[in-house]
This record gives sequence, C-alpha cells and structure tokens, in this order.
Amino acid sequence: MQRIEFQTDPSRYRHWRLEFDGEIASLIMDVDQSASIFDGVELKLNSYDLGVDIELYDAVQRLRFEHPEVRTVVIKSGKDNVFCAGANIRMLGKATHGHKVNFCKYTNETRLAIEDACENSGQFYLAAVKGSCAGGGYELALAADHIMLIDDRRSTVSLPETPLLGVLPGTGGLTRVTDKRKVRRDRADVFCSTEEGLRGSKAVEWRLVDEVVPNSKWADAVTNRARALADRSDRPRDAKGIKLTPLDRRLNGDSIGYSHVNLDVDRDRGIATLTLRAATDPVPASIAAAHAQGAAFWPLALARELEDAILHLRTNEPTIGLVIFRTEGDSQNVLAHDALLGESDWLMREVRHYLKRVLKRLDVTSRSFIALIEPGTCFTGTLAELVFAADRSLMLIGTREGDNRPAATITLGEANFGFYPMGNGLTRLQTRFLDDKEQIERLQSNIGTPIEAEAADELGLVTATIESYDWDDEVRILFEERSSFSPDALTGMEANLRFAGPETMETRIFGRLTAWQNWIFQRPNAVGPQGALKLYGSGVQANFDPERV
Amino acid sequence: MQRIEFQTDPSRYRHWRLEFDGEIASLIMDVDQSASIFDGVELKLNSYDLGVDIELYDAVQRLRFEHPEVRTVVIKSGKDNVFCAGANIRMLGKATHGHKVNFCKYTNETRLAIEDACENSGQFYLAAVKGSCAGGGYELALAADHIMLIDDRRSTVSLPETPLLGVLPGTGGLTRVTDKRKVRRDRADVFCSTEEGLRGSKAVEWRLVDEVVPNSKWADAVTNRARALADRSDRPRDAKGIKLTPLDRRLNGDSIGYSHVNLDVDRDRGIATLTLRAATDPVPASIAAAHAQGAAFWPLALARELEDAILHLRTNEPTIGLVIFRTEGDSQNVLAHDALLGESDWLMREVRHYLKRVLKRLDVTSRSFIALIEPGTCFTGTLAELVFAADRSLMLIGTREGDNRPAATITLGEANFGFYPMGNGLTRLQTRFLDDKEQIERLQSNIGTPIEAEAADELGLVTATIESYDWDDEVRILFEERSSFSPDALTGMEANLRFAGPETMETRIFGRLTAWQNWIFQRPNAVGPQGALKLYGSGVQANFDPERV
Repeated sequence: MQRIEFQTDPSRYRHWRLEFDGEIASLIMDVDQSASIFDGVELKLNSYDLGVDIELYDAVQRLRFEHPEVRTVVIKSGKDNVFCAGANIRMLGKATHGHKVNFCKYTNETRLAIEDACENSGQFYLAAVKGSCAGGGYELALAADHIMLIDDRRSTVSLPETPLLGVLPGTGGLTRVTDKRKVRRDRADVFCSTEEGLRGSKAVEWRLVDEVVPNSKWADAVTNRARALADRSDRPRDAKGIKLTPLDRRLNGDSIGYSHVNLDVDRDRGIATLTLRAATDPVPASIAAAHAQGAAFWPLALARELEDAILHLRTNEPTIGLVIFRTEGDSQNVLAHDALLGESDWLMREVRHYLKRVLKRLDVTSRSFIALIEPGTCFTGTLAELVFAADRSLMLIGTREGDNRPAATITLGEANFGFYPMGNGLTRLQTRFLDDKEQIERLQSNIGTPIEAEAADELGLVTATIESYDWDDEVRILFEERSSFSPDALTGMEANLRFAGPETMETRIFGRLTAWQNWIFQRPNAVGPQGALKLYGSGVQANFDPERV
Repeated sequence: MQRIEFQTDPSRYRHWRLEFDGEIASLIMDVDQSASIFDGVELKLNSYDLGVDIELYDAVQRLRFEHPEVRTVVIKSGKDNVFCAGANIRMLGKATHGHKVNFCKYTNETRLAIEDACENSGQFYLAAVKGSCAGGGYELALAADHIMLIDDRRSTVSLPETPLLGVLPGTGGLTRVTDKRKVRRDRADVFCSTEEGLRGSKAVEWRLVDEVVPNSKWADAVTNRARALADRSDRPRDAKGIKLTPLDRRLNGDSIGYSHVNLDVDRDRGIATLTLRAATDPVPASIAAAHAQGAAFWPLALARELEDAILHLRTNEPTIGLVIFRTEGDSQNVLAHDALLGESDWLMREVRHYLKRVLKRLDVTSRSFIALIEPGTCFTGTLAELVFAADRSLMLIGTREGDNRPAATITLGEANFGFYPMGNGLTRLQTRFLDDKEQIERLQSNIGTPIEAEAADELGLVTATIESYDWDDEVRILFEERSSFSPDALTGMEANLRFAGPETMETRIFGRLTAWQNWIFQRPNAVGPQGALKLYGSGVQANFDPERV
C-alpha cells in the first residue's frame, strides 16, 4: 500500500461537504464510492475507509479553528436511503492486521475529537440520522451530543458487527452504548445482536437515540434542535477564524522536516528521532498578535506538525519500533508561549486542547518512546510534556567535554499541571505520581526553575541520570535491548503501564474494547479462510470453531 | 487433555504445605516437579501449572473457613534458592490458546481471592521472598499485603516475561505494579524489561517490595512482621472453623448433579442448563444452628457447588457457548437464608464474600448467559442475582395452560443491594442502572414483594416478557441465533457490555491486561514456529517480525 497522506483540505474532499449557515454548519457525508484508498474496494452506501475518516478529521479540526462562529455542527448524509453503513467490510477483509488496528485507532481518535469539541469548545454535534445507520455509522452518531432519528419506517440504527461480521463494533460503540448512552446491559446485548437494528420510539425508549421525528416535521425539527444546541454554546460571537494553511513540510528520503519538528528515520536500526524545536521568532506581544500569526503561531504549528509526524510514523513506518524524543531551542520562548496559551481566549483554548489531543495520540501509539535530555535540549513547559509521555527518559549529568553548552535542565511550567490531561483524566505528572498530591505540590513549587540532572532525579522527573562518559554506551545498550524484544509484548506492556490509575470511557475504548477487538481481528473465526470477515459478501456462510476462549 | 478436577484437599496436595502456629499460618510452596497436569512437563524451580494453582486456591479457601484463628498467612518457598519461578514456560508453549486463557483467568481469580481475604476477612498475607521470585512468582507476591525480600545478594524480584518470553506478566503484574504498588511508570518500564530483576534497597526504593532484611535477621523479622499484621485483624479469637467437606457430586454422563445445583450439558446444541435450587430443609433457627450445619449450610454449599460447576464448564466444556440459568424452590427459604447471611458474624461474612467471588467468576466467564424465568422458578434474593448476571433474561407472562403453578415472579432481597458487588465495585443492579440512584431506591422499596412479569418489565429487571404461547418459539429462536454467532465476537462483546461504568484494578486486570495478553498469546511472535514461547529453552533465539501493531 502506498504512503497514506493525512493532510487534506475542503477543496480536496471526495467524501464530505461543509455548508455554513451562520452559527450552524452542516457536515454532509457523501462518500465517493470510487475513491477508496484500497484498489478494487467500492465504498458503497456511505461506507468508509481511512481516507474518508481523514477528511472527517480535517473537517472537525477546521470547524474549531476556522469557524469560531459555528456553534452546532449537523452531521447528515448526502445519500437518499442511507446515513452511513459503517466501515467498509471488503476493505476490512483485505486490510492487514496492522492496517485494521491503525484504522480503528484513528477513527476512535476522530470520534473523540468530536466529543472534545462539545466538551471543551462549545461546538456541539447533532447527528441527524435519516436512512439506515449501521455499525461505524451509528458509532459516528454516538459521538454526537444529540442523535435525532427520522421516523419513516425505514431508518434504523444498528450495530450488526457481531451477528453479521463476527467482530465487535470497535470504534467505541460497545463502550458508548453502556457508558455514554447508559443503555441497560441486557438491552445493549439485544441491540448488538440484532442485525436489522432498532427504529422509532423503541430506539428512544432504549436510549439509543434522543428523539424520533416524523418525516413531515424532520427539516424543521433538525433546525430547531441545532439552534437550541447553539444557544448553549460559549463560543465568541464576533471572532475571526484562523486559516489552517498547508503545512510547511519537506520530505527528504525517509525523513521529514517541518518548521518546528523533524522526524528522522533510521530504518536499519528501526529507530526514529522526533525533534521538537522552540520558536525562533519572538513571542507575540499580545493575544491579538498571536491571532494575527494564524497557523504560524508556534504552539499551533507545533501541534499540527507533531500530529502529522505521529500519524505518518504509525501508518507508514510500521517497523520503526523506537522513537527518540528530542527538543531544541529557547526555554524562555516556550514558557512565554505557554503563558499566552493559558490566557482566556477562544483561540488559546483551541490550541491548548489541540496540543492535548496530539499528546494523547502519543499515549496510544504503539511504539517505545525514549526522551533524551542532553545539553542543548529544551524540555520546558509544553515541550517537557514529552519527558512524561515517554516510556523512559535519560538525562545527562553536567556538561560534555569540548561542548560549551550548559548542563541539561528540565523546566516545569503551568502547562505541565493541567493544560494536557491524558485520556484517564489526569495530567501526565499526576499519572506518574499516582495519588501523591504532596509530590505534585512540591513540583509546582519548582515552576520556572531550570532543574539539573541530580535534582530532576531526586524529584522523580527522569528515569535515569547518566555521566557523560557513560552516555553513548548506555543509550546504545538501551536501544539494542529494546529492539531485541517482541514488538507485540512491548505494545501490550506499554498499553498497560502508560495508563496507571483511573479508567474513563476514553481509556476503556482504547484499553478494553480495542484490545478485545484486536484479539478478534486475529482469530480464524474472523480472518481465517472460513472466517466471517473473509467470507462477507461471498454468499458463503462463515464456519465457526465453536470453542469459547 | 483429560478432565481437570478442581476439588482437592490438603491430604492430596502435591505442591503446597500448610503449617499452623496459632494466629499465623505458613503456606509453603514446594512444587513436585514430576506432578504437572501436562505430560512431559517438569515443574522445576517452583514453577507452576493449573494443578498447582488449584491447590493454592483450595488452601486460600480453607484458611478462611476452616481457620478463623489464622490472622496472617506467610507465603514461603520450600525450596532453597528459589521462591517461585512463575508459570511453567514449557507448559505455556504446549498449551492450547484456550487453556492459556483459562489458566490465566483462574490464577488471576486466585490472587484476587488472596486480596479479598485481607480486605474483607482480616486475614493478611505476607510474602516472605527468599530466593529468586520471577514472573508469576512475583505476581503471587504482589497479591500479598506485604512483601519482604531477603537481602542475600541473590534473591531478586522480576517480571521477565517481556524480555525473556515475548508475552506479558498477565496475572495482574503490570496492573498491580502501577496501581497497587504505585511504581512510577518509567521505573515499571525498566523493571519489566530487566530480565534479572531487582534486589536489595533499590527494590524498596522503587516500591517493588516493602522491606529488605539481612539474612541474619530474616526469620525473626518475618515472624515479627506476621505478628504485626495479625494485630490489625478483626478475626474472632475463639471461633471454631467450618470443615469444607467433600462436595456431594454425581457425574452422570455429561451432566453433574450436586445437592443444590445441576449442570445439564446438551453437547449437540452447545447449551448447558445450570439449575440452582433453594434449600429443602428448614432454615437454621439461629446463627449457632447455621454454624452447626457447617459445609451443609445452604448458601455455603450452593457457593461451592456453583463454583465447581462454573470451573468445570469453563475448562472442560469449551464448546458449550450458551448457559441457561434456572432456579427452583421456596422463595421464603432463600430470603430467610439471606437474612442470616446479613447478620454480623464471621462465618456469615465469609459465606457472603464467597458467594460474591463465585458470582464474579460468572462475570468473567466467556459464555452467554440467559436466565429463564418461568412458573416454578425461584429468582429470589441471592438467586435473583443470576438474572442480573445474565446477558439476557426472559420472563413468561402469567401461567401455562395445564400447569397449576402460579405465575413466575422475581423477588428482590437485601442481598441484591450490596452483598455481591461486581469487580467494578458496583452491585449488579447499580451496574444495570448506571448512575440512576432513584431507580435503585425504587427497586429497594420493592424488597420482599414478588414481582410478576409486567411489573418486572416496567421496573427494568428483565430483558423481555413473553406470552406462554410464544415462549417455546422465542426461546428456541434466541438459542439458535446465539449459537450462530462467532464465539469470539460474543466473548469480546460480553466482556465489554458486562462491565459498564467504573473500572477498578480488578476489572483492569480482566479487561485491559488480559485482553492484551490474549492478543499476544495468538501472535506469531509468541506462538509461531519462531516465536519466543515456542523456542524458549531450545537455545534458539526467537525471530520477531519487527512490525509494530
């Protein structure tokens, strides 16, 4: 499969349309069935593949940044008799295990981005379901704040994965049905076993949708509901959006250079180095000046570039098992940008939550992360978050012979104490020092102070401190050792150790639901020659091994 | 593999010894390497298989019921240089996927039973670690309240699964390290990647053990610590234990009859019927009379029989995908027994928590459960819990023609509102009506009142109510439909839908950790011809596919 490109813009959409009417936007799914990223796959009935979801994610992002005036987004279908048929099954049958896992991860992140828009940005999503809404289609609707279903005797919601395909509704469906919609578990069991789904008042009674509306009143009811949602929004009335201009990105062999990010790939060793740089330009003098920078505003540009690099790495570089985090630049510049981010302003809020979402993508990325903290690095504030997102961090003690740069430091900022909660609802420092509030207070008292290796070690901020004469050997041994381990065991180990403490709907989706789905995605009953995914559409029934495991 | 037997007693132990010294018991692991349940497997170095764990679980149970005087249980090794080497790797390499999954489930339940003894029964476990304590050995120690490690320069604790075997420490290790021991995630990463483990003061500093003690002071320190733990216990000083006598059990072809439980297996249809019967004898007139009944006390006998039936079904009947729950007997008798269980008494407390643990075994059993509530059934109090543990429940409306038994009812009791919390910390009714306190209060106001079908439906207690003339067809269609689904998809679906709401360390172990381990247990990097589990001990290095999924 060719390199998958995550950058797009509305002028290039094949599958979605955006329409604007003041505070209400319509996000219309109208999949071009001939435009799958898989050769020979037809995306019939508004079914989707990763390419469709990349456009959806782009739209969700642009709605937040480019359209502060939009308070309600109505998700609709552009087809007559179908809202969305879910993930394309032929595509799932053809895709490698790795692609399926990456696909589900990305689509889950997109649905969480929709929920984040509501929860943190006052941009509410309304799913206006007309036509059949099945599987991933209903999971898309589940991400909305409010689900309306037309009562036309044909339109249904369903999660037919188990009865039809022998897999799970893996894009959050099972979790959102019980935890978000609070559907009773036995009704959820019936619903998830009923291929044809539910419709009408029963769908409301069972809490699967919020309301059903007769055909004759549909258009008005959707508009009225969209207005009512908009009235709850705290988005600014007269703000001007920020245009998400194309990324400054240069491919250079296996490596990618962005304005503030570099991804250098060493394919032979299976290692990539991800370098994040502080801004070299001065910090904007005011919020207004930050707005004027638009997409060039450093934290926003950084978020977009880092996100693109992570997604590329996940999808296009599956054999890179280890990623080194590095940083460069001026600590004060980072802290000054962070100070702007902390101000009360719609755009600063957007950037903060965007950086949060991008850092969360790291947490669920199945690669080992090692932060290397050396003279010349800049692990400060937002950039220090990489130390706490890493599986391990190594810090060089003092200076290097022949290197006149000062000793490496870590500088904590306000950003590390609340800007970027993980999926478990805790900051990375809270997760690191689970239930130890005194330790968090102790760290807070160090905000703004450069912390050298010995103190960082004593404060528990780094995994190990290393003398300069041992550094190269220690780092080399660690890399070699990590590369010698089973990639699968590392994935499972990291997925467990990174999420200490509380679980949330979000972590349940990535932990419990995804792990079970990944298991099922490998089982002969799904992907074997007689498995349900393989035989779907062939007219031949799957032949299941009846053994319960 | 032959039928696995879960019943044992100390006279038959091959791998453990129990020694008693007043309030302190020693539970000594001394595995007979020639006594594996797998042919050709040698259980060297105190490594274990399911047979070893069945004895451990039996000992843990007997310590609670037969030894109210025991306040501290010291887990020790009977070998010189090893505490416990963990699960036997040859066994894991030979075992089917299904056996591995069942084995891990059972060992997890045993470790949780150890923690339950401390939390709810005032019986504390002390792991006295002398010699190497690796993998499942350390996971056993992690279940204890307190871990002591001898400081002899040789004794270590380790979780070498990832570096050595390409799998996870799947018996709660990853979760307990971060969530129970609160080891920092980066240190946990180092620890779980370090084959040789940690020892001495570093093991204390990293919170992996609670204390290290020099060789010369070891015996005294263990005794003193055991006494200190015992001092915290609320177990009665002068109580007389209850002997767990052999089960009343009759094998009859594929079916099993117990005194209050029947398991009828219909292998052709892949269905089993699990029938629980109320006591036919009168309820003991007092707590003292209940004590006098000993193991024949109905709730205790019921718990033991139900547990044996579930474990048999899981392990020895893998192709039975659907289990019907039925009940019989006198409702008032059940409520009267429940009333005794609710009283303040050490034995009643033990029985209540035992029933809780057995019902939790149902929750993590990968079979579909359907409760059939018909005239003549007795879904009351403790027995009504089966309705709420089921994936679905069907209730017959009114009476049957030619059947003079009254209409079916469900009767709620105090037992349904707190005796039997699930692993998520909520009762089954709380889980069913997530966050709906008013609904729980409404149900509580119905305690003791027989609820007929229509009212049960209106109260949300059953999935569906069915007229008598439709009953047979509806039930048949449901069974046929369920049997046509992918067993794997059902397992994943049920594992998600049964655990709505909060996650705890316990549900994280069964949900997140186990699901990832099951995934890894199927991957070629573990079980393929060049996988780490397959090649372990052969001298040949595993050859990993480097792709990260």
